[in-house]
Amino acid sequence: MKINLYKILKNKKVLYLAYDQGLEHGPTDFNDKNIDPEYIINIAKKGKYTGVIFQKGIAEKYHDKIRELEIPLILKLNGKTNLVKGDPVSKQLCTVKEAIRLGAVAVGYTIYIGSKYEDEMLQEFEEIQRQAHEKGLPVIAWIYPRGKSIKGKSKAKLMAYASRIGLEIGADIIKISYNGNLKDLKWAVKSAGKTKVVIAGGIKKQEKEFLKQVKEIMKTGCIGLAVGRNVWQAKDPLEITKKLKEIIWKK
Amino acid sequence: MKINLYKILKNKKVLYLAYDQGLEHGPTDFNDKNIDPEYIINIAKKGKYTGVIFQKGIAEKYHDKIRELEIPLILKLNGKTNLVKGDPVSKQLCTVKEAIRLGAVAVGYTIYIGSKYEDEMLQEFEEIQRQAHEKGLPVIAWIYPRGKSIKGKSKAKLMAYASRIGLEIGADIIKISYNGNLKDLKWAVKSAGKTKVVIAGGIKKQEKEFLKQVKEIMKTGCIGLAVGRNVWQAKDPLEITKKLKEIIWKK
Amino acid sequence: MKINLYKILKNKKVLYLAYDQGLEHGPTDFNDKNIDPEYIINIAKKGKYTGVIFQKGIAEKYHDKIRELEIPLILKLNGKTNLVKGDPVSKQLCTVKEAIRLGAVAVGYTIYIGSKYEDEMLQEFEEIQRQAHEKGLPVIAWIYPRGKSIKGKSKAKLMAYASRIGLEIGADIIKISYNGNLKDLKWAVKSAGKTKVVIAGGIKKQEKEFLKQVKEIMKTGCIGLAVGRNVWQAKDPLEITKKLKEIIWKK
Amino acid sequence: MKINLYKILKNKKVLYLAYDQGLEHGPTDFNDKNIDPEYIINIAKKGKYTGVIFQKGIAEKYHDKIRELEIPLILKLNGKTNLVKGDPVSKQLCTVKEAIRLGAVAVGYTIYIGSKYEDEMLQEFEEIQRQAHEKGLPVIAWIYPRGKSIKGKSKAKLMAYASRIGLEIGADIIKISYNGNLKDLKWAVKSAGKTKVVIAGGIKKQEKEFLKQVKEIMKTGCIGLAVGRNVWQAKDPLEITKKLKEIIWKK
Amino acid sequence: MKINLYKILKNKKVLYLAYDQGLEHGPTDFNDKNIDPEYIINIAKKGKYTGVIFQKGIAEKYHDKIRELEIPLILKLNGKTNLVKGDPVSKQLCTVKEAIRLGAVAVGYTIYIGSKYEDEMLQEFEEIQRQAHEKGLPVIAWIYPRGKSIKGKSKAKLMAYASRIGLEIGADIIKISYNGNLKDLKWAVKSAGKTKVVIAGGIKKQEKEFLKQVKEIMKTGCIGLAVGRNVWQAKDPLEITKKLKEIIWKK
Repeated sequence: MKINLYKILKNKKVLYLAYDQGLEHGPTDFNDKNIDPEYIINIAKKGKYTGVIFQKGIAEKYHDKIRELEIPLILKLNGKTNLVKGDPVSKQLCTVKEAIRLGAVAVGYTIYIGSKYEDEMLQEFEEIQRQAHEKGLPVIAWIYPRGKSIKGKSKAKLMAYASRIGLEIGADIIKISYNGNLKDLKWAVKSAGKTKVVIAGGIKKQEKEFLKQVKEIMKTGCIGLAVGRNVWQAKDPLEITKKLKEIIWKK
Repeated sequence: MKINLYKILKNKKVLYLAYDQGLEHGPTDFNDKNIDPEYIINIAKKGKYTGVIFQKGIAEKYHDKIRELEIPLILKLNGKTNLVKGDPVSKQLCTVKEAIRLGAVAVGYTIYIGSKYEDEMLQEFEEIQRQAHEKGLPVIAWIYPRGKSIKGKSKAKLMAYASRIGLEIGADIIKISYNGNLKDLKWAVKSAGKTKVVIAGGIKKQEKEFLKQVKEIMKTGCIGLAVGRNVWQAKDPLEITKKLKEIIWKK
Repeated sequence: MKINLYKILKNKKVLYLAYDQGLEHGPTDFNDKNIDPEYIINIAKKGKYTGVIFQKGIAEKYHDKIRELEIPLILKLNGKTNLVKGDPVSKQLCTVKEAIRLGAVAVGYTIYIGSKYEDEMLQEFEEIQRQAHEKGLPVIAWIYPRGKSIKGKSKAKLMAYASRIGLEIGADIIKISYNGNLKDLKWAVKSAGKTKVVIAGGIKKQEKEFLKQVKEIMKTGCIGLAVGRNVWQAKDPLEITKKLKEIIWKK
Repeated sequence: MKINLYKILKNKKVLYLAYDQGLEHGPTDFNDKNIDPEYIINIAKKGKYTGVIFQKGIAEKYHDKIRELEIPLILKLNGKTNLVKGDPVSKQLCTVKEAIRLGAVAVGYTIYIGSKYEDEMLQEFEEIQRQAHEKGLPVIAWIYPRGKSIKGKSKAKLMAYASRIGLEIGADIIKISYNGNLKDLKWAVKSAGKTKVVIAGGIKKQEKEFLKQVKEIMKTGCIGLAVGRNVWQAKDPLEITKKLKEIIWKK
Repeated sequence: MKINLYKILKNKKVLYLAYDQGLEHGPTDFNDKNIDPEYIINIAKKGKYTGVIFQKGIAEKYHDKIRELEIPLILKLNGKTNLVKGDPVSKQLCTVKEAIRLGAVAVGYTIYIGSKYEDEMLQEFEEIQRQAHEKGLPVIAWIYPRGKSIKGKSKAKLMAYASRIGLEIGADIIKISYNGNLKDLKWAVKSAGKTKVVIAGGIKKQEKEFLKQVKEIMKTGCIGLAVGRNVWQAKDPLEITKKLKEIIWKK
């Protein structure tokens, strides 16, 4: 089965707008504007993002707008709150079939490697990956090392391990966190083989520092970025979007 | 699929009569009159409640009366006793299909966020939400922060987080507890986006104080109230009902 | 669907013969006579019991005799030994379909409320209740408070809570233990609403004391008794049966 | 449905050859000869055993030989190693359908009563018993008290309890360990009702002592023996087999 | 059903190229060349390996190359990272059906005997073995003693136990670790009966020492070797391959 990766790529590069923080962290990340999913949808439209990442609830309640504006929807299929202590587990909260019904062109799933619930997430991912590929839908894996077991381990090694796992379990794209070392990221990208690597934007940074890092990232073979807070917390989201796009697509 | 929300709304507002305390707390909340489900059904009828909340057993045993009086039935699909110590878990005790067979026009489900069993409830909710929406049935999520992990956390933040989760997981209406701060509740309502917010009545209060609070609540964008003990423990349930309706619908 | 309750009632009253102690306590309750299921079947027949309670194995191995004598079979669908320490859990050991195949006219299930496995039993009960009602089969719930969490709690409150749970989860009949206080039992019966209440006989007592208690019980609205050891451990099981029937049906 | 018990009985008596020790204890029980399943198959054939007990793997790999020699195959459906510490759990490792495909005329399953995993094994047994009986296949339950909870309990009572459980859960035959007391075993056999009792041979004993015990056993109503090490660890397995058969069938 | 073992055998001997280390250990085993699956595929092709072992992700992403070069694909159906502490559990990450779709001619599965999750892996293996055999696909079991319970146990006994388990659970081939004692391995091979034994190459060794060990192994009845790091970490993988083949097939 051919995987329709082209629907979330543009000239083999990507810029995704992530907006699953409401479930993961609560509205604490939001202000009066960006708390509204329509605000995000408008940024995605005007900024011509190659994908926007929502949970099922938002995809369903704001379905008409998403459809009308032809936003390329990436449905995040699992999630959790940040309230529960201990090793993290994030379980499936939307089926592949439901994602397709909601118009998704790709699905995403987070795996916390090193967590004592790692096996549960690997198994849920397996089923999702298989079901999505049966329908030609690309699968993006968020892979983050977490839990007691990983304490004290090398961040460089964990980053490369996360990337490699993405390849071994059949993700089409993986989203990982950048440790800040260019050489390490190159090795991580190499470890991922034919699986493409996207970097998570993370918490809000100074614009200058952030753009510098994006330039670095784009030299390693990564195909792009998934941004959230650095864009929709910005004073002018479209301006920072424009700058990111110039770096990614080297216009 | 269109969700038939209109069946449990009246002019976009609601007043629900909750009566699942028998399972949740035992008959300790009841007296000789309100221990009888028929007493509640009569209040619901005469008070023209926009919904009455029962567990499967009551919906089944008092089915003829509910049907005859055309009570809008909201079936609570999960429940637990208050006997077990430790982090709470409330599991599914009625299927969506069964709820429909019993004449329900909406279904409800409680999620204890922060509990170490949070993931189990989120997953059960996901299936219920999907099955209900396939049939056009609205889904109400009771979302309450609970368990060891939430100790010491800000009530305002938890209230907003609960609301946001309702949106992210696809509830049509959420029922939350009010922390008593008007500004916080406004933020919580905003966090819920297109998901509507209903406030839980909670334990019996002085009428004056209670009505004052309801007035406050109705200024925040909440669509109404789910009351139980404050009505059916009242000397004259229909009188307090009348006052509540005047506030909610501003007659 | 109509529930065929009439098959285990006689003039709205009941006298059941319980014989699931072999699994629950071991043969320690038995002597050379009552260890034989045929001995029990004969008592049930001659005593015209309105129901006799067996586990699947006995129902299957003694099927011909049960059928020949037209014994109204109540199949107990879950069970456990008394060997395992800690909070009790009793899981399903016979399907509803199998019970019907074995000729059962009703099914039973035990729920230990307050046990940390309470949720597992409530969920198994839910499925059984639904499947049985689909076939018109009445469901009897044995509801007993157990486990670490209930220590020190009021027996009166627990008895009423057990009864109410029976109603909320959709049991047709509940079997509870009597705390010995008439007023408390009346409240428990009231808490059960349209769900009928049967009292468990419990360990062997002095006949006089036992009959006195039964008389009391029958004044509270309970529909009868489920007896075991007080009958089949008696010197003359039919004599005590006769006395019980006189009380229950006031002949 | 008629259970085809006759396929593993001869004049209502049995002598089974058990060979599941490879999984349960490892090859430590074996020598250069009896490590080979064909050696066992030949003993079973020449000794005219009424059944031989294998795990799926041996039944499959030595299928041609088993079929050619018309060995009555009893497939053991669960198993575990002896490597894991703590309360034992033995899970299903072969389906009933697969057993039938492999030519089994009966199936076996071990339940460790008193283990904290008792409920899991009781539930797996339930499904197996039902599926096997649907196909007319007899079910043998190995029932052994194990785990922390049973420490200090009376062996006589546990033996009778094990037997009774076999009846209550619907086993056709149970295999238990003999505590060495004739009166206790008689009570255990009586506790089993219509379920037949077979004694496990256990570890290798002096021949004289072993045969004396078998004579005792056959006076209690037991229908025979399941032997393993006492036969295939013997210098001349067919000679000891002959002696056992003389006792069991009193030739 | 006939098992098509011939597809992964050559004159009854084997040399497999294992490349599942990316998931099991991370890219830490790799260098700039062997991190690329295509490098491995080329070694497999030129070295005429009788099988190459991949996880689903690599089999899918490098499918065209594997197919074009007609590499005999052995799909590893379970896996885990080495990040999680405590007793290991490795769960199924690819279905048998999916393996067949990806062109696999055999499937593999790891069981950590002695781990407290042993039962979960034995049960997953059972299902895989059954499904694979239904389609004529051979099943290779990696069997390694692991976890707290096995500490201090004899490596010779564990090696023989691992082998025997392979037979009892129905593996066609088992892959075990060699303890370095020729006599012990002979006993292990004997314990495996008709199940064939393959030795795991393990960590990179001095070539001379490694080849000496392989010669030893081939005298015990083992059918060959599964190599990974000793080949693809070698300066000239094809040269060491050639030497291994000369030993295995005694050219």
